[in-house]
Amino acid sequence: MNGAESLVHTLLAGGVDTCFVNPGTSEMHFVAALDRIPGLRCVLALFEGVASGAADGYARLAGKPAGTLFHCGPGLANALANLHNARRAHSPVVNIVGDQATYHRPLDPPLTADTAGWARGVGGFVRTATSAGGVGADAAAAITAARTPPGQVATLILPADTAWGEGGIAATPDPPPPTPRASAAAVAEAARALRSGEPAVLLLGGAAAGEAGLAAAARIRAATGARPLVETFVGRIPRGRGRPAIGRVPYPIDAALAAFAGARHLVAVNAPPPVGFFAYPGKPGRLQPPDCAVHVLAGIGQDGPEALARLAEALRAPAAPPAAPRPLPEGPVRGAVGPEGVAAILARALPEDAIVVDESISYGRDLFASLAAAAPHDWLQLCGGAIGEGLPLATGAAIGAPGRRVIVLQGDGSAMYTLQSLWTQARERLDVTTILLANRKYAILLKEFAGVGAIPGPTAHGMMDLADPALDWPRLAGGMGVEAARAATLERFAELLDHANRRPGPFLIELMV
Amino acid sequence: MNGAESLVHTLLAGGVDTCFVNPGTSEMHFVAALDRIPGLRCVLALFEGVASGAADGYARLAGKPAGTLFHCGPGLANALANLHNARRAHSPVVNIVGDQATYHRPLDPPLTADTAGWARGVGGFVRTATSAGGVGADAAAAITAARTPPGQVATLILPADTAWGEGGIAATPDPPPPTPRASAAAVAEAARALRSGEPAVLLLGGAAAGEAGLAAAARIRAATGARPLVETFVGRIPRGRGRPAIGRVPYPIDAALAAFAGARHLVAVNAPPPVGFFAYPGKPGRLQPPDCAVHVLAGIGQDGPEALARLAEALRAPAAPPAAPRPLPEGPVRGAVGPEGVAAILARALPEDAIVVDESISYGRDLFASLAAAAPHDWLQLCGGAIGEGLPLATGAAIGAPGRRVIVLQGDGSAMYTLQSLWTQARERLDVTTILLANRKYAILLKEFAGVGAIPGPTAHGMMDLADPALDWPRLAGGMGVEAARAATLERFAELLDHANRRPGPFLIELMV
Repeated sequence: MNGAESLVHTLLAGGVDTCFVNPGTSEMHFVAALDRIPGLRCVLALFEGVASGAADGYARLAGKPAGTLFHCGPGLANALANLHNARRAHSPVVNIVGDQATYHRPLDPPLTADTAGWARGVGGFVRTATSAGGVGADAAAAITAARTPPGQVATLILPADTAWGEGGIAATPDPPPPTPRASAAAVAEAARALRSGEPAVLLLGGAAAGEAGLAAAARIRAATGARPLVETFVGRIPRGRGRPAIGRVPYPIDAALAAFAGARHLVAVNAPPPVGFFAYPGKPGRLQPPDCAVHVLAGIGQDGPEALARLAEALRAPAAPPAAPRPLPEGPVRGAVGPEGVAAILARALPEDAIVVDESISYGRDLFASLAAAAPHDWLQLCGGAIGEGLPLATGAAIGAPGRRVIVLQGDGSAMYTLQSLWTQARERLDVTTILLANRKYAILLKEFAGVGAIPGPTAHGMMDLADPALDWPRLAGGMGVEAARAATLERFAELLDHANRRPGPFLIELMV
Repeated sequence: MNGAESLVHTLLAGGVDTCFVNPGTSEMHFVAALDRIPGLRCVLALFEGVASGAADGYARLAGKPAGTLFHCGPGLANALANLHNARRAHSPVVNIVGDQATYHRPLDPPLTADTAGWARGVGGFVRTATSAGGVGADAAAAITAARTPPGQVATLILPADTAWGEGGIAATPDPPPPTPRASAAAVAEAARALRSGEPAVLLLGGAAAGEAGLAAAARIRAATGARPLVETFVGRIPRGRGRPAIGRVPYPIDAALAAFAGARHLVAVNAPPPVGFFAYPGKPGRLQPPDCAVHVLAGIGQDGPEALARLAEALRAPAAPPAAPRPLPEGPVRGAVGPEGVAAILARALPEDAIVVDESISYGRDLFASLAAAAPHDWLQLCGGAIGEGLPLATGAAIGAPGRRVIVLQGDGSAMYTLQSLWTQARERLDVTTILLANRKYAILLKEFAGVGAIPGPTAHGMMDLADPALDWPRLAGGMGVEAARAATLERFAELLDHANRRPGPFLIELMV
């Protein structure tokens, strides 16, 4: 058994059975091993950023770690932006990254780069294999690290000679350590704070924003009036009819500050104390008011849902009543395209148990709330602010949750970062409906620029306007094998959405907004 | 004057008047400063890897450093692969990378990443500004570093508050240190080696592969028989009619070893001793034979052309005779598309003073030699082996050398990494003809896989085959505003090539190979 073969066996033993790949020369022995050992599904991406974002999306849905395979150095570099998102989402991802043979690297051939240094920026576990015999154990350690709560990105660098060398030993990864429980003191402190009757916010992130956490938060709200809020960017949250009501921390700084105004207690569950996405001159960096006490009920890696349940018990909170029925959003369903109409159509058309991936950036900020009355769905976002993850996330989510329709709300500017995703969607026949919100500008930057207090002149405008030339998304999608059409009216949008969601495979709607 | 304004003034004072940009929120004050201070041309790219590759291409042609502007963390990460190529090409590039405000970074908002750590992998100069007052001096140091022979990538990280803060002071960059001359001992040693009459190779890289270096090498060859060879991947080399004959180190390991077989002396000029691009089991890593003595005439940062001229004088080499006229390559110009026909058509159709960008990977390996009889041109390649630089390099080269036609020989697999380049070519109306060599597979990987001694099974084949779905390049190009057409015969290729080269602006030919 060579090192590469021991690696494949170990990945399979650790439940890593799906890899998002873009291999190169130094990975050919690993690729050959995949041919000889069945069981590992390889999903090809035509750019590494597609593969890393898809791995993030897969890991959020599949309940097991995603694997990746990247080429040495620059191959990993191309994956970093979406690995950064995966890191912030605490997604378990195991990267296998090829590299120069151990004895060849000191000769510094042109493709030699600081692979390990680059990997360190996205995860706590980075290891370079040093021998074929050690690869299995190294991979097992990587898998255990990736699965350690709350989940993380782990990178195993595989020099070519450790892949082709004989003497490989398959390993079985240790189970990850159990998720630590919150301390009794933390529960008691939070209970005291909420019993005070002073205005309080329950800030949920990570696992706390799952079904059980939301239910417990609803009980706590009913008992104490504490407002539950989910972080601005959430990895995965169940939404729609029957799910408890919850707000979301707004992105724009003034609205974000307003969301916490008046709060005297902030109870953080699987979420760090909230801060502005960026600093702005003269505005505070922390979102809670200075006189608001922060109580960490459960830290990032602790069991947030369990802590919320204990808190609810401590507060003697009764079972929460069923969520009140909510009206579908009012809004035109014919005529000119506007946010209200888009929300009204989406809320009515969302398939049961859909997965909504939101990279709508500025245009779709209200859709999270607007779709609360829609059919039950999961809501996914990029968590690290690295744009260009919507299409990859959708690709991975569709593979991680077959049978569920994926709906992507995608700004055009950020879609261009990783448009190659569409090819993988076509190749794998994934049930993904992409709603491409085409405003032909970096709208968020124009808003931020206005915040600088200036009107864009020609130079600035030229850096934020995408209208010359106009991107033609039906042609771009068609060029990658994805059927697509353009909608310039609401009725056409509704018609295309219905068509897209009923047919198997991917479809892209360019919605002129 | 705020920090951002001092930065713009300093860039202009240092000759950095063209920036390839993809800004984000944390760069808005810099963007606003660009509006207020005229003189800096900003070229928008829809993905950072396009901008960094274009900066590399611009720097190779323009004779001055290229600027870039990237968003914090992941924005830089997306640029790294082509910055790696720029580093290996010794291209002077000054990166301006936004970042979280100094006082906000410790709060670790989601988009915080190890910006400086990632930058360190691509350049010797990485600095994070700490105050608005220091930004000018920091930028001046970055520019001087970028211009220090042989040229390098320099990165200045600009926390948002150092951009918006008042107290900026514009600076004038110091001139770079002069290029060091080779030592008299090195010239004497090389002269002794070549006078021995033993088989010798002159290995040229970097500046030594320019007009003057090639001329001196031709004199030395005429006087001693030493064979000049240029590195496998060369940043820029003048080629075509009237230029001295020179070989190139082949990429495949066996051919590369054969190119040095029998040599007793290797004289390296602006090139490291040659090594295999990758290691292969049972094959040596160094390309020269064990009994071949290596003589470094001029190191990477030394004045190679001057050293070659002194060596020619030491050898009393007469002026080289004019290059012998070479026949244009024979080959069909009608019928089925094959490498000989493509070479024959290209050699006849190449416009005078064209810039050829070669990312043809496996299909076009013989084109370097085949075009030696074509009209005079410059030949550019990616130097670090990070694929996906052809289209960006062409984009930057066209901006760095207006009035010259750029011809890109581009494999389809690698084109997909940075296809967003086409949009920038359309936006800037660049005279770029892209010849997209569509073989619908990762052909080089199939060759390398064969080298592993295996026949690809379904899993391996699925990672190297791009035919399902087939990419439709005319639609992809059209979707980004670039006119395009497909050629499936040689006569159609010749017709489209003629059409493309005569019209202003970009054109893409999908050549089915």
